[in-house]
Amino acid sequence: MSERVEIVEVGPRDGLQNEARAISVTEKVRLVDALSLVGFRRIEVASFVSEKWVPQMAGSGEVLGAITRVSGVRYGALVPNMRGLEAALKAGADEVAVFASASEGFSQANINASIAESLERFRPVLARAREVGVPVRGYVSCVTDCPYDGLVAPEAVARVAGELRTMGCFEVSLGDTLGRAAPERVDAMLGAVLERVEARALAGHFHDSFGRALENVSVALGRGVRVFDASVAGLGGCPYAPGAAGNVSSESLAAFLEAAGFEHGLEIERLRAAADVAVGLWEADG
Amino acid sequence: MSERVEIVEVGPRDGLQNEARAISVTEKVRLVDALSLVGFRRIEVASFVSEKWVPQMAGSGEVLGAITRVSGVRYGALVPNMRGLEAALKAGADEVAVFASASEGFSQANINASIAESLERFRPVLARAREVGVPVRGYVSCVTDCPYDGLVAPEAVARVAGELRTMGCFEVSLGDTLGRAAPERVDAMLGAVLERVEARALAGHFHDSFGRALENVSVALGRGVRVFDASVAGLGGCPYAPGAAGNVSSESLAAFLEAAGFEHGLEIERLRAAADVAVGLWEADG
Repeated sequence: MSERVEIVEVGPRDGLQNEARAISVTEKVRLVDALSLVGFRRIEVASFVSEKWVPQMAGSGEVLGAITRVSGVRYGALVPNMRGLEAALKAGADEVAVFASASEGFSQANINASIAESLERFRPVLARAREVGVPVRGYVSCVTDCPYDGLVAPEAVARVAGELRTMGCFEVSLGDTLGRAAPERVDAMLGAVLERVEARALAGHFHDSFGRALENVSVALGRGVRVFDASVAGLGGCPYAPGAAGNVSSESLAAFLEAAGFEHGLEIERLRAAADVAVGLWEADG
Repeated sequence: MSERVEIVEVGPRDGLQNEARAISVTEKVRLVDALSLVGFRRIEVASFVSEKWVPQMAGSGEVLGAITRVSGVRYGALVPNMRGLEAALKAGADEVAVFASASEGFSQANINASIAESLERFRPVLARAREVGVPVRGYVSCVTDCPYDGLVAPEAVARVAGELRTMGCFEVSLGDTLGRAAPERVDAMLGAVLERVEARALAGHFHDSFGRALENVSVALGRGVRVFDASVAGLGGCPYAPGAAGNVSSESLAAFLEAAGFEHGLEIERLRAAADVAVGLWEADG
């Protein structure tokens, strides 16, 4: 039997938050319900950041309340702080995620705090989540390239990833936020991170803005990573701000893993049906 | 020895023509020169359409004149009519391509002619190219979905592809211009086309706007197609008009073909170096 690689579906959250048009709660629910039938064990559906900053994520609580939950699927939400965590728990999130940056410039721009401050902010979130038995994932963004600071040192990524893991994150997802990461630099970054965090607690999160996501998946597979984030239909791929979005599509990733001899556990026909729903969000758009 | 699949690099033409920013002749030449070292047998570098319509293609003649030609590589150009052909020949194009649409709506919008009129316009182009011994490729766009007419009938694609082949095109490249093609529909389309054109004279040209390109490559491989168009770094993937661009990246396609056990003949390190040049076009952009 071939080795298993898990695809974590992040389209309804990371994908839609980067789309220019607003998607209604009803549309999101329809998309999540289609994704629930595909075989994903985890779907990230919501974000409890301020609606002022990411208006596309308004109605996250409603989405979590309205979806038809399928047994065996964990529905996740992004939480920036205690307030976000409480809202996510109230809405019934099965898993939450905190997010830090590997570069100071992006940390300031994205969450208005230094890396150290952001990590301090997550401590009570992790403690409270532990109390209620909700697993916490940690994202690290800008793991090779930062729009403000340029190239990011592998050691900087290792430090943040190690901190998140030590704090209690069951998994650390390493994100090439810009989609500019050269595969050689992803390899060097992983080399440094693996000194602090074991491969089975890592995930790869590669954007495809410059068509490099699958090469980077390849490199990470070679380093022992077996969990990857992806978005159905590559949601997030048509931003008005070039270079900042575009998750690798779940369909491409599944096709690639299959060709490479890994098992992903997804039902392709149902994934295609979910992709049709996602593409359909643009049909009415003209 | 594993079976060979050819990747035709179209980034300097199809990719750049869909980018919002203007790329200078010097930048294009640098990109083409990097691509010439990768192992591609064909690189599409220029387009002799009116600069009024596609300003990014201004300087096509200069590009063809300034690149460092590598033996064994054919440098191609798009030509809409006799005037374009003469300009391409003068500039030293090794191969030219004509382009028709499978849908009337797109034909009118894109080339301001009915499908039948456009095919008539190509007749003298093919005759003249034959005289001077320059091979002509035929593109068919909108092979499953048209932004104006909606779903495109497989038989309509087969008719245009068959005409182009009969006229003398050595290869017909079937394009999912919008990147919306569902794999089942690509399969049905190919079924119809293969009644008129043999697999070895076909190429697949899939855009990745919705992350479906590799699935469609998979389907076409299953139908016997062994030539695919791709763009280094997925050039064309950051348009301001959502849904109309984004070639599958040459790197993704190469990684996928390798995983699937096909030989592509490209040197990955050099492909990565060329991708770095392509990504670098945006670095200065902020």
